[in-house]
Formats: sequence, structure tokens, C-alpha cells
Amino acid sequence: MFTSITESPLYHIANPGSIAMFGASNNLTAMGTNLLMSIKAIGFEGPIYPVHPKENEVLGLRAYSDVKDLPETPDLAVMVLPTRIVSEVLEACGKKGIGSAIVVTAGFKEVGSDGADMEKEMIRVVRQYGIRLLGPNCIGVANPHGKLNTTFMEHEGRPGFIGMASQSGSFVTQLFNYLSTYGLGFSTAFSVGNEAVTDIVDCMEYLAACPHTKVITLYIEAIRRGRAFMEAARSIVPHKPIVALYVGGSEAGRRAGFSHTGAMAGPDNLYEDMFKQCGVIRARNVTELFDFSWALGNLPLPSGRNVIVQTNSGGPGAAAADACSRAGLQLPPLSEKTLERLGEMVPHTASVANPVDTTFTKNPRHYWKEIPEALLDDERCDALLMYLLMPPQNIRRALKHLGVPEDEVEAKMDKIYSSTAASITPLIERYGKPVVGYGFRSMEEPFSKHLLKNGVTFFPEPERAARALEAVARYAEMRKNLLKNGENAAENGSELIGKIPL
Amino acid sequence: MFTSITESPLYHIANPGSIAMFGASNNLTAMGTNLLMSIKAIGFEGPIYPVHPKENEVLGLRAYSDVKDLPETPDLAVMVLPTRIVSEVLEACGKKGIGSAIVVTAGFKEVGSDGADMEKEMIRVVRQYGIRLLGPNCIGVANPHGKLNTTFMEHEGRPGFIGMASQSGSFVTQLFNYLSTYGLGFSTAFSVGNEAVTDIVDCMEYLAACPHTKVITLYIEAIRRGRAFMEAARSIVPHKPIVALYVGGSEAGRRAGFSHTGAMAGPDNLYEDMFKQCGVIRARNVTELFDFSWALGNLPLPSGRNVIVQTNSGGPGAAAADACSRAGLQLPPLSEKTLERLGEMVPHTASVANPVDTTFTKNPRHYWKEIPEALLDDERCDALLMYLLMPPQNIRRALKHLGVPEDEVEAKMDKIYSSTAASITPLIERYGKPVVGYGFRSMEEPFSKHLLKNGVTFFPEPERAARALEAVARYAEMRKNLLKNGENAAENGSELIGKIPL
Repeated sequence: MFTSITESPLYHIANPGSIAMFGASNNLTAMGTNLLMSIKAIGFEGPIYPVHPKENEVLGLRAYSDVKDLPETPDLAVMVLPTRIVSEVLEACGKKGIGSAIVVTAGFKEVGSDGADMEKEMIRVVRQYGIRLLGPNCIGVANPHGKLNTTFMEHEGRPGFIGMASQSGSFVTQLFNYLSTYGLGFSTAFSVGNEAVTDIVDCMEYLAACPHTKVITLYIEAIRRGRAFMEAARSIVPHKPIVALYVGGSEAGRRAGFSHTGAMAGPDNLYEDMFKQCGVIRARNVTELFDFSWALGNLPLPSGRNVIVQTNSGGPGAAAADACSRAGLQLPPLSEKTLERLGEMVPHTASVANPVDTTFTKNPRHYWKEIPEALLDDERCDALLMYLLMPPQNIRRALKHLGVPEDEVEAKMDKIYSSTAASITPLIERYGKPVVGYGFRSMEEPFSKHLLKNGVTFFPEPERAARALEAVARYAEMRKNLLKNGENAAENGSELIGKIPL
Repeated sequence: MFTSITESPLYHIANPGSIAMFGASNNLTAMGTNLLMSIKAIGFEGPIYPVHPKENEVLGLRAYSDVKDLPETPDLAVMVLPTRIVSEVLEACGKKGIGSAIVVTAGFKEVGSDGADMEKEMIRVVRQYGIRLLGPNCIGVANPHGKLNTTFMEHEGRPGFIGMASQSGSFVTQLFNYLSTYGLGFSTAFSVGNEAVTDIVDCMEYLAACPHTKVITLYIEAIRRGRAFMEAARSIVPHKPIVALYVGGSEAGRRAGFSHTGAMAGPDNLYEDMFKQCGVIRARNVTELFDFSWALGNLPLPSGRNVIVQTNSGGPGAAAADACSRAGLQLPPLSEKTLERLGEMVPHTASVANPVDTTFTKNPRHYWKEIPEALLDDERCDALLMYLLMPPQNIRRALKHLGVPEDEVEAKMDKIYSSTAASITPLIERYGKPVVGYGFRSMEEPFSKHLLKNGVTFFPEPERAARALEAVARYAEMRKNLLKNGENAAENGSELIGKIPL
């Protein structure tokens, strides 16, 4: 570990002041051109110097025929060039004094022995010139806080708190859209490619020190430095959660990973044990990877695994109860005091076992404030799982029939959604316990959007909600164990993590 | 089993010519009023007779103060009345000659012994008068093909092919919106409630004979007639797939189900064995329940478990390969002939192992036609799983930079989406093998909507796609076994199933 984030080999890769761009042209179907368009689209604030043998101007920027002619030494070179010339261009960059490079170009180790030879030569060059390298065969970096995006697709959504290191570039660039649907975003995301020089462990150390990152999210096909991975994870986890998806453990996943980045995967149970030993939360698939990241970055840690489920519909309550049980959470009975408090608010057809199925409430507002308050107040409650339904048609027809003028109905609905959505986050603040929502409606509906705007963690199905809550409970347990077992190491780590300004 | 669907005790419940409505008023917050609004909103074509002690008119319909005054004998009574008067009103219905009733009212067996006594009295009354009863404590029926929806929420989307029987009314009425997002819909959906008289087995028999139903979908908290369930399933499964979610097998799910409908659930492994023995495909959660229903209703049956994954992005390919492996599917290597055909279309950086990762294609159209054709032609391919990505921003910026006028870009994009989406279903028809898509973008995006319009089965994550494909493969295997083991029984069943017009 380093003592300042600026010492990270990835610092200028993620935070360049200026960029030399190789492989962009005015041919709009070329990969390099698309990358440059992405850099421009996010509003990168430093100078960009396209280097092109023939063009005087590339996408409106002055182009240079040779890197040695650039008016300054840029912090970073981004390269999408034919495989066979990459080392030569890197050498020219080294001579110019450029200290960092992203090599997007593929066709190295992952395609066989000729590629592997070219990769070795490239490594020799960057070592000789002290160039810090990300890639090859990667898609680069997205650091939306720093207005940087070297990837194929334009950045969408807001900068967020998910720090990603990925052995797939697609899971950086192709997920901007996915994350923005959930109101999420990357703090910084690295596509590591073949990891010729810097690797996923370097990214973890960078993200541990990154103040925008609340959770470190890993997509792994194979870990190249097992011991370093475990040491880094053990010192990070007490301070920041790490979530990992490992796809190399199945036979087909292993083969796919090998063709993809030339990495040799290990048996599933080996990785399973490794993750457990160093406190990394394992996700089973891409959906869980980001669900867990969302919950871990957004919720307080629960004291235990006792969940109360609140619903106004029997089936969704039973499905959530079943999902909690299967995820390894418990549903305790409510205390006498809680039962008394609920009795005043719910009809006789309600069930006040856990799940608490109100069926309906005497005052509809109670569902969103007084009832969750009573449940969170119960000392057996470590976390609350709420069914969130505001059926638009029914609200619309009620308002219409209540005499709200046609042209005011939508605005009135929006107000109802907005005030309802705003009632949940204060519960978390007041009780310091996780509150997670679930439903079966789209994340793109107006009420969902209000929930997202208000920072509510919620999922479009109960199983995802239950598993995300379990991941948070698991992290709380692992963190406690790591802190107990390695207080000194953890204390050392804490000096660095999250405290160094970028 | 019956010889005509009209003999089903549920026939007039799902296909009434006329309805007597009890409990609707002009009070717009009342449950009964909302149900009547739903019946009107879907455009029910027969007469509706509100019965109300005080009102002359209910929601614009002439109301009657007593059922005996109705000008004809309606086929069906729908009842949302206080628990204690339900039996009395059913008796009046019986005297009028009404043969079918839906009792929405709760507060019976599920709330304890007083309720159980009232339920017994109700059963005595309906037996005495030969009334066919759905409920109590249910939400009724949605039969969008027959323009009937007695449930709380207005029907959304198109009539579909999913025949549902549910021990939760929410999983009928609250899922109209969910299903319509996926371009799906119910053929007919029954909320069975406490199953005082008709039960989930009656629904299965009805849906087996319903010509609109391609797949039978069950939400189960507890099965009351185990033997009848198994016999019905065994005779139906060779002709129509049955998918079931059972939530009563976990401790919390069992308790929730008991408070919900008063049903006694059994151990999880008992249900697991029962489903296996009669060929019912088990879903682990609500999402799988409808994912499996979609795939089973929409795809041809594969000959085996060999899947080829086609992608142009490494990570999504590896994640899909891993998901297939974990779901119990195999990824065979491609034949020499297929490799040759692919070689002409993909660059040297492509991987032609399985997953087939094209990275890009020399002609972009090849990804959507020639490549899947080559893969489906491979005799080792039982099913194809395709990564479906059409990134809107990149297409938009390419079109703009290619000189397409600003105001024509969106129309041009729509045309590209439309022709691309139209290329997939013909593959299924030509090769008779399942083709399933996956991606990470919203189902509400323009390209997704074109895919849905073209009948493509696709999922917003690879694991759901892989598990749905596995469900179809499992059904193909179970069906074959059931046909082999019970040819006579199955042949008898086939005379009835799906052949009787409504």
C-alpha cells in the first residue's frame, strides 16, 4: 500500500491533466474515434492531443503527426493502434516523457503465442521508460467525478460511489446505462484487460484510497496475484466493503475467460475460500454484483440478521418471507409493545405476525411513517424490508373521482409520490438500521424515480432485496471478525483509506 | 377431468354473460367500487347489476336494492361485503338461481376460529344451492380475452398466454403492469383465496382446456389436495407445461402463508419431490415464475442441453457461459464446418470457442443473421443464447456524423432497431431451436420494445436467460418421460387439452 493516492500507479491514468490520443481519426466507425468522442462528451477539462500521421485536425482538435512534436508532455497516452506498432509508439511516448498509458488494442497474450511475444516486448518497453500501463486489451477508465471517460460508450447518469475494477471492459462501458437506471454511478471504474503491468490489486488499492468510493466492485475471470489480492482485501475490508463476481469457477466460465484475457482461472471452491478468508462478499451474477454494491454503499450496517417484512399484500409478503429465509435471514416475532402500537393502526384482517401484512391501514399515511417507525423501534428488528406499492391507476382514478380537475391530476400524483418517497430515508437516519424496499414495478416509473431521487435502496423483486440485505449483514459480520483478528493491521490501513484527497 | 371446458366449475366464473355486483357503491375508496371500476374499464360486454340497499345508481349503472329484483338471473355474483352477511347474501343468490360466485371478502378461516365457523356456514349454503364458488379472501378473475377483470387494479397490456392460478390475489392484479413490461399477459388468471370450494386443481383443469393458455403458472403457499394435484399435473404436463412457485417450504414462508390464507404448508423437500414426480417445473421466485412461463410458452423444445453463446463482448459472454454452466446447461465446442463458416465473418481477435465472441464483425449485419444461422446449423447446438446490444448513443452519433439530418436520426434509428429485431424470430422458425436473448439494458428502451413486438424471448441479465433456457430443456425431458411412462393416460388427456373452444 502507498501513503498517498498520488503514489498509485493508476493515479495519472484516472486523473490525467492532459491526454495524447493515438488511433482516433475522422473515420467515425473507428474504435479510437469513438473513444475520443466519449472523452469529449463527458467534458474532459484538460488539453487533448490527437496524434495522427496524416490528419491536421481530428474531431475539431489540432492533430500532431508525431508524439515528439506535442507542445507539452501529456500525463497520459490512450492508444487504439494496430497490435504490431504498439510497442514502438510506447517507446516514442517514453522518450517524450509520458508517464502513463492506456493500451486499448487487443491481439496480445489472449490470442496465442505471437500475441504473447508482442506483449512481452511491450512490457520491456514500459519497464525501460517507467511507463505505468493499463491494459492491453482493455477499454480504459471512467472517472466521472474527474470528467474522464476513455471508454467506447458515452457516460450516462451521475457520478456515483461504486469503485470498479473489471476484467471485462464491457462491464464498465456497457453498464453506464444499467447503473443510471438504478440512480447509481461509478466513482471510478477501471477495465484492466490483460493486466500486463498494473492489475486488479492495484485498482483495489487505488479505490480504497479514493474518497468518492464507498464500495469496491470486482468482476473477476482469474486473479493473477493471489497473495497480494488477499493482503490488500484484508486491509481494505474493515474500512470499505469489497464485492466480487468470479465467473472462472465453472468449466464454461473458465474457458470463456481464457479466450477473453488469457487468464488462467482456478477452481470455484478455491476462490470461494479465498473470498471468505479475506472478507470479500461474493456475488453470484452481474445483477447481484451491483445490487450488493448498492446496498453496501447506501445502508447502515445491521447488528444482526433479524428482518421485519412490512407489506399490505399477502403474496408479496409471503414471497419476501420465503426469500429472506432462503437468503439466510431470520424473521423474528414482534414484541408485545410493537403489537400494541400496530393494533391501533391496522384492521382486524391484518396479520401482525412477521411478515406484518396490514392489508390496508386506517390512515393510508400510516403505512409510510408510523408503522415502519413502530417496527424499527422493535429491539428484535435489525433491518426492515418494505413492500413499496403506489398503484398509479388507482391513485389517478381516486383523484379524478374526488373532483381533482383533469389537468391537475398528474401534478397532484407527483406530489403524493414525492412526499411518500421522502418519508423513507429519514427512517434510516433516525433508527440507524437498514430499510430496503421491493416491488414488482419498473424502476422507470414516476414513483420509482422519486424513490431513487430520495436515496432509497429498492429492488424490483423480493429475492434481490433479501439477498442484498443478507450481503450487508454478511459484511457487518466479516468486518467485525477482521477488526477483531487484525486490529493493528486494520488500524494502519485506516490511516490511508478514504482520507486522502484526490 | 371433464370432457368440455364448459363443465368446469370455473367456467361461468371466468366467462360470465352477466354479473350481479355486491359491495360496489359510489364511495370511491371502497374496495367493491374499485372492482366494479375494473370490470367496466376492461369493457365487459354483458349486463352488470349492482345490488345496493340504498343507491338507485352505482357508477352510472342502475342499481337494485335486492338480488331477487334483478330483471334476469345473472351468471355470476361478485361479492365484497362484510364477512358476517356473506352467507345470507349467497343464500339469496341461490334462491335467485345464480350458479356462480366470487367472494372477495376476507375475515374467514385465515383469521381464526370465528372466521372458520363463518366459512363452514358459507360452504353449507353454496352446497345447498349448487353455487360454484371462488374464494373467499380472493381477488377474483382476470380473463382479458373475455374482457373480464374483477380485480382491484385496471387491466394493463394485451391478453396473453399465461394461465395463472394463484393463492395470492396480488400476484394476479399487481402483476398486470409487470407482465405488460415484458410484452406478456394472462390468458386467464384466478385468485383462489381460501379455496373453500374450488381450488388450484380446478383452475389447472380449466386452464389445461383453455385454448388461449400455453403455459400454466402456479403461485402456491400450500396444496390442499395433493393426490388430485399430482393426477391433474401428470395428465396435463405432456401437453402443456406447468410452472410453480412454492413459498411455503421455508419456515418464514410457511408462517406467512398460514396467516394469509389459512393453509397448512408442507416441508420443502416433499413439494420438491411431488413437483418432480408429476413433471411440474419449479421456480425459485416470482421472477423465475414468469421468466419460465415466458420461455415455455414462447419457444420450441430443445433436443438437449447444449447451448451456444453468441456475443460481441467478452465479459457478457463469460458471464453467460458461467450462468449456463451453473444452471446445468452445457457449452459444446463448435464443429469444424461451423468454424469455417465463422472464419469468413469475424476478425482474428474473435474467439470461436463457445462462447463465440465475435468482438466485432466485418459486416455488422452478419451478427444478426449469418452468424446465428451458422451456429443454429451446427448439429451440436440445441439452443442459442445471444447477447443483444444496440447502443443508442453510438448509433445516434454514427448516424449524425454520417450526415443523416438531425430530424431524421430518430426515425432512422427506429428503422435499424425494427429490422434488427425482426431478424430473430425467423431463426427460430427456420431451425426449430430455441433462441433466447440477453442484455443489460431496460425492457422499456426502443430496441427492447421492438424485440418484444417481434416475439423475442429475452432477459435483462444472462442468469435469468440461462435459467429460463434450462427450464425449457427440463420440461422437454420431463415431457418425454411422462409420455413414455404413461402413453395411454396422456393420449386420453390430449383429447381434451387445448382443443375445446370456449
